[in-house]
Amino acid sequence: MAGPQPFGYKELFAKNAPATARGTTRHAKYDFAVAYPDPDTLPLVGLIGALKVALEREGRDLAYYPEAVGLPALRQLVAEKLARDRNMKVTPDDVVLTSGSGEAIAMLIQALTDPGDTVLAEEFVYLGTLRQFRRFGADVVGVKCDDRGIAPDELRATLKRLAGQGKKVKYLYTIPIFQNPLGWTMSLERRRLILDICREYGVPVFEDDCYADLRFEGENVPAFHSLDDTGQVLYVGSFSKIIAPGMRMGYLVAPQEVIQRAMSFKSGGVSQFTALAIEEYLKHNMYQHIDEQNESLRAKRDAMLASLGENFGDAATWSKPQGGLYIWLQLPEGADLAALQEQAFSEGVGYFAGPMFSPEDRGKNCARLCFGHPSPETNYEGVAELARILERHGVLRG
Amino acid sequence: MAGPQPFGYKELFAKNAPATARGTTRHAKYDFAVAYPDPDTLPLVGLIGALKVALEREGRDLAYYPEAVGLPALRQLVAEKLARDRNMKVTPDDVVLTSGSGEAIAMLIQALTDPGDTVLAEEFVYLGTLRQFRRFGADVVGVKCDDRGIAPDELRATLKRLAGQGKKVKYLYTIPIFQNPLGWTMSLERRRLILDICREYGVPVFEDDCYADLRFEGENVPAFHSLDDTGQVLYVGSFSKIIAPGMRMGYLVAPQEVIQRAMSFKSGGVSQFTALAIEEYLKHNMYQHIDEQNESLRAKRDAMLASLGENFGDAATWSKPQGGLYIWLQLPEGADLAALQEQAFSEGVGYFAGPMFSPEDRGKNCARLCFGHPSPETNYEGVAELARILERHGVLRG
Repeated sequence: MAGPQPFGYKELFAKNAPATARGTTRHAKYDFAVAYPDPDTLPLVGLIGALKVALEREGRDLAYYPEAVGLPALRQLVAEKLARDRNMKVTPDDVVLTSGSGEAIAMLIQALTDPGDTVLAEEFVYLGTLRQFRRFGADVVGVKCDDRGIAPDELRATLKRLAGQGKKVKYLYTIPIFQNPLGWTMSLERRRLILDICREYGVPVFEDDCYADLRFEGENVPAFHSLDDTGQVLYVGSFSKIIAPGMRMGYLVAPQEVIQRAMSFKSGGVSQFTALAIEEYLKHNMYQHIDEQNESLRAKRDAMLASLGENFGDAATWSKPQGGLYIWLQLPEGADLAALQEQAFSEGVGYFAGPMFSPEDRGKNCARLCFGHPSPETNYEGVAELARILERHGVLRG
Repeated sequence: MAGPQPFGYKELFAKNAPATARGTTRHAKYDFAVAYPDPDTLPLVGLIGALKVALEREGRDLAYYPEAVGLPALRQLVAEKLARDRNMKVTPDDVVLTSGSGEAIAMLIQALTDPGDTVLAEEFVYLGTLRQFRRFGADVVGVKCDDRGIAPDELRATLKRLAGQGKKVKYLYTIPIFQNPLGWTMSLERRRLILDICREYGVPVFEDDCYADLRFEGENVPAFHSLDDTGQVLYVGSFSKIIAPGMRMGYLVAPQEVIQRAMSFKSGGVSQFTALAIEEYLKHNMYQHIDEQNESLRAKRDAMLASLGENFGDAATWSKPQGGLYIWLQLPEGADLAALQEQAFSEGVGYFAGPMFSPEDRGKNCARLCFGHPSPETNYEGVAELARILERHGVLRG
């Protein structure tokens, strides 16, 4: 006997409610694809101890609904941290805790973007943000970069061209430190130039600073946000990289009028349980933990760089980032890492090729290699394995 | 010297990005306004112990990004719980973990509602959902209820009238158990009738079942969802009431085609840290904890009911719910509890008056009294104090 006729929803869906495919998580033997941080230095024991202390002190308050903007003590800690580490002048009221930086990015995009609006970004863009841009119908224009970040002349030319076409640019999205996926850090001088050019055109800078803590060497560069006192910079940060992605804790910093709009795209406050653990833990252990983690990450990066040198030699170039989680591998024009991505995965090495990060589907000869999750030994072996795969399939000249 | 000219965002905001006021949380001495659960039975020690076990087992996985639909083991637990307690047949794949039931409700509303769409609800509606309806431009039509729930004749007449006006109804939102704010539970027979009437008109039932665990007495009534096998019922539940609102953990259950649309309104998975603690704790302690909590809540309800009897006597009527967190107080027509709400708060008693729950701004002579958070003694004293305030201001005849 046939089952009952399924209930029909087709006529009931909202106009802008696209069906999303169920994501599946796959891990290759050598998993350089997704940007997971270091599992070896997760402060699990410390978090549990901190949570215990915090719940003994204020656990009864879990019976309340958290403030939509998040735990005041953690917003205070964020404000103090940003002053100390990023040269920023903000109060806890300027900070909103979010479900990872992903929610912060989605909130700001929705507050500022109507379908068809033009937004600028680097020529290769963090995948998650690119997806959100597409989800909300933004027309993303990539701006060329050099090894110090967005090229000022290119930015100016792009803004001029778009203005000539009568297009208002809503914001410039940038990851100015340990850029995802390119790996460079924008110099202070470059930041000043970019900010000035944007100001001329009335364009805010949307700064995604989520790798700022992961510096292994070299001098700190203050945030874009610290260079402006007019409210031109919207700022997003995250605890995913210094605590864990699984905690889903990020934040945004913005002028009040922007926060007020962005809040209409937030559904309630973050988990108070998670926020209490993070606040109590970081209050006592932040810099010690960051140092320990960066030592571990540095060894992982070094192993990957060493293996790239030994196995790719002159056949490719790659970024040498001073921190973060990524190396950008660039093969000669014509090499197609995009076409080989699935095959390489099935042969044991996962990576994401350039077009996944490109608003214009460019960069087939490029790939992002994440070094944060595997051990140094695995990074070393995996890059050698990648070279062997590429040679076997004629993509790399042996 | 004047500061710099603030950066201008006015021309940059998206069209549908209303500015939201910053919420402030205020607690009256006798706080019957917001529906907080029982702080005395929060399982804080149990949650920490459970988290420790779970992190020892799978803490390294916090370095991964959680699945967007949430921790598989907790979705499995939800599916098993719904089978046992609500008679529902669902698999873990039918379940999506959300940031409280608030996110689940927002996701379903956005998946199914365009601005101007007509949706049905009970004549008094949970505040949070009513706000979301307004946020997304739904035209909410309230349907009259009696003490067994939505009145079938009223529902049929409303659907007929709307169809006559050429209006397609997108769904019927209902809290069929310990209704917020009215307190009644819809009988099984009534549920069957409502479901049939809705089916005739092609209208899904959007069941918000978040109080189902809080039964102190009387017989369990199976979920709407269990009475249908065509996918006509969309279901939302929550751990806010049996664990804590501060955990921000709820869930939705829906046909795959609806989940696929709803997921485009979700920003990433819930906190894995929180999910692990809840799963590990409930796996071993769920029913013992629920029993303990309901014993505590029953005493609080009884104290409020006793005080209502002694202090309001024949001057008012009120619901006698078999569970949940609310009592609905009804004064004679003409009494204005809405006008007195702010004054009563300043004199020490917080409540929310009827119009806050009404799509049509009705129910001035009604108020919702939440009994879950204060102690039985405080509930008893607070209701007496409320009677004195109402008498003093001439709203209640002494």
